Amino acid sequence: MSSSDWNPQLSDKAYHLLTEDANKIEKLIEVQMQNLTTRQCPLYEEVLDTQMYGFSREVDFAVRIGLVEEAAGKMIVSKLERNLAQLYEALESKARSI
Amino acid sequence: MSSSDWNPQLSDKAYHLLTEDANKIEKLIEVQMQNLTTRQCPLYEEVLDTQMYGFSREVDFAVRIGLVEEAAGKMIVSKLERNLAQLYEALESKARSI
Repeated sequence: MSSSDWNPQLSDKAYHLLTEDANKIEKLIEVQMQNLTTRQCPLYEEVLDTQMYGFSREVDFAVRIGLVEEAAGKMIVSKLERNLAQLYEALESKARSI
Repeated sequence: MSSSDWNPQLSDKAYHLLTEDANKIEKLIEVQMQNLTTRQCPLYEEVLDTQMYGFSREVDFAVRIGLVEEAAGKMIVSKLERNLAQLYEALESKARSI
């Protein structure tokens, strides 16, 4: 990124928008976690995977355009991926216990 | 978008990156169009749909951050959607002729 491209306001806004979108996915994960003991929607995993893919493309775009540091982008995505992996683990262990 | 956010270099870069990504999808559509008369890969539609979704999320992000005009963003996405619709029409008409 050339120095003329550097724009702190836009960079802040990029982080803000990505955090907002990450929070929406976190919310979806939490809702499904809370529903573990009740009924399980079979489409939930697909919706979450699609959301995660869309989010990672947003982050990638923000990194490529130079508004978000590559390391920070990776961290945001892997934090969500870890939470998602925990959900899938919980779903699997629930499936085994039925 | 406040005037302090406006950054023509970054806006140009956003359009450039999006055009690059749109071209990749165009290429995928073209390849599949050329393969209409030969064999048809059943996963192609799914790959294209996923790519389109990821692309529309990128465009949406660029619009939300104020680097791409909303109307321009919509135009880029609908142009690709039209090409994709043509491909699906061709695939269907091929399926009917078999």
